[in-house]
Amino acid sequence: MTYCVGILVRGGLVMIADTRTNAGVDNIATFRKLVVCEKPGERVIALATSGKLSISQAVMSLLSEGIETEDGRRETLMTVPTLFEAAQLVGRAIRKVFATDGEALEQQNTSFDVMFLLGGQIGDAPMRLFQVYSAGNFIEATLDTPYLQIGEHKYGKPILDRSISFEVDVLDALKLGLISMDSTLRSNLSVGLPVDLHVSRTGALRSAVNFRIEPEEPYFRDLRERWSKALRDAHLNIPRPPWAVEAP
Amino acid sequence: MTYCVGILVRGGLVMIADTRTNAGVDNIATFRKLVVCEKPGERVIALATSGKLSISQAVMSLLSEGIETEDGRRETLMTVPTLFEAAQLVGRAIRKVFATDGEALEQQNTSFDVMFLLGGQIGDAPMRLFQVYSAGNFIEATLDTPYLQIGEHKYGKPILDRSISFEVDVLDALKLGLISMDSTLRSNLSVGLPVDLHVSRTGALRSAVNFRIEPEEPYFRDLRERWSKALRDAHLNIPRPPWAVEAP
Repeated sequence: MTYCVGILVRGGLVMIADTRTNAGVDNIATFRKLVVCEKPGERVIALATSGKLSISQAVMSLLSEGIETEDGRRETLMTVPTLFEAAQLVGRAIRKVFATDGEALEQQNTSFDVMFLLGGQIGDAPMRLFQVYSAGNFIEATLDTPYLQIGEHKYGKPILDRSISFEVDVLDALKLGLISMDSTLRSNLSVGLPVDLHVSRTGALRSAVNFRIEPEEPYFRDLRERWSKALRDAHLNIPRPPWAVEAP
Repeated sequence: MTYCVGILVRGGLVMIADTRTNAGVDNIATFRKLVVCEKPGERVIALATSGKLSISQAVMSLLSEGIETEDGRRETLMTVPTLFEAAQLVGRAIRKVFATDGEALEQQNTSFDVMFLLGGQIGDAPMRLFQVYSAGNFIEATLDTPYLQIGEHKYGKPILDRSISFEVDVLDALKLGLISMDSTLRSNLSVGLPVDLHVSRTGALRSAVNFRIEPEEPYFRDLRERWSKALRDAHLNIPRPPWAVEAP
């Protein structure tokens, strides 16, 4: 499996993705699932993916080679004029892969399972964040729900539900995203380190940081320990339930 | 859906279950999913269930009417001599319902989806906790993993993974189970209040508490508020990531 989260706040965009790929529990490998396309001053686009690696890699290849438009040009994430069209382009790439591989996958009883997060900014237009489904359709993060998750999303959802809003500082959003990732790493073996992350600030039109967290990285280690300790302290500080009055 | 958790610690047993049943999002009802069979001084057995209500109610009816044994007696949870045989009896009841309804359900493309948690103590034997699957087979909680979950288990798993061990006090286990339930209630609409809970202490052979938490119940309200505040404080107390050094 995979866990990827995208968070869009007033100050910018955060994208975080793990790197574990598994075909059964005895076939585990590390693959990058977060890529960034950027032309500083003009555009920055981050793309994260979950689902079958063969499908997502084929989609990524199509996106980097370009997909032919009606007027004969080759459109890529580096040429699309808006982020909305970037999401449409990802959708078209997914549909092209489905047209090629969908029937053969179905003959092997294998689902066409793929999902993308696409976030970024082009020119003067606002920063946006999309989730593209395996049918090529997509939804967009909004002020009400400024984060989107793909893959093993449940373990890491409670902390986001409680704490993320559009007004959260972008570095706090990164921190909350990492806490969400930590909860998922702890509870699900199919999500694993290293973890890739991307941050871009609104209006900057370039990455603020692209970083890979390896298992020994000191900040993430410290965050995990502090969070564990805080949770232990938090539940110890809550009084015991009053109902079980009977002694043993 | 449903969320039920059973926790077995040295000091006793905790079972917690929500009460929401839904057939689609526009057909929501409240059904008790946690029942307790007890004969004080002899046995206390708690049973929680997730899955299709029609199946679990049929299983519960069979268990209360009794299932005929080879020597012609009617065995119920009030007559089985050991908790292991209680788990077997639940498994047999599930298989009987499958024999009656399984084929018709399959014809309607409806899965035979049911799961039980069974915990308790009979006589001098140790307290035990089992999870019974829809095939009637079962697993048992151990010192290494002293809790079992059924239904929507992912949202509430991280806090249990971090904090539950066999040596935790039984009232702390109840508190942690309620925090786990709170995370699930917040993140999944198909799990809802009221919440039923049962606690029995090792060796007591009777319930210490059976309680229903209604939406306005003051202790659980306070626990939810304290936990939310503690999580907010916890992430605010973690330093911001050091990597995003570039100014906006």
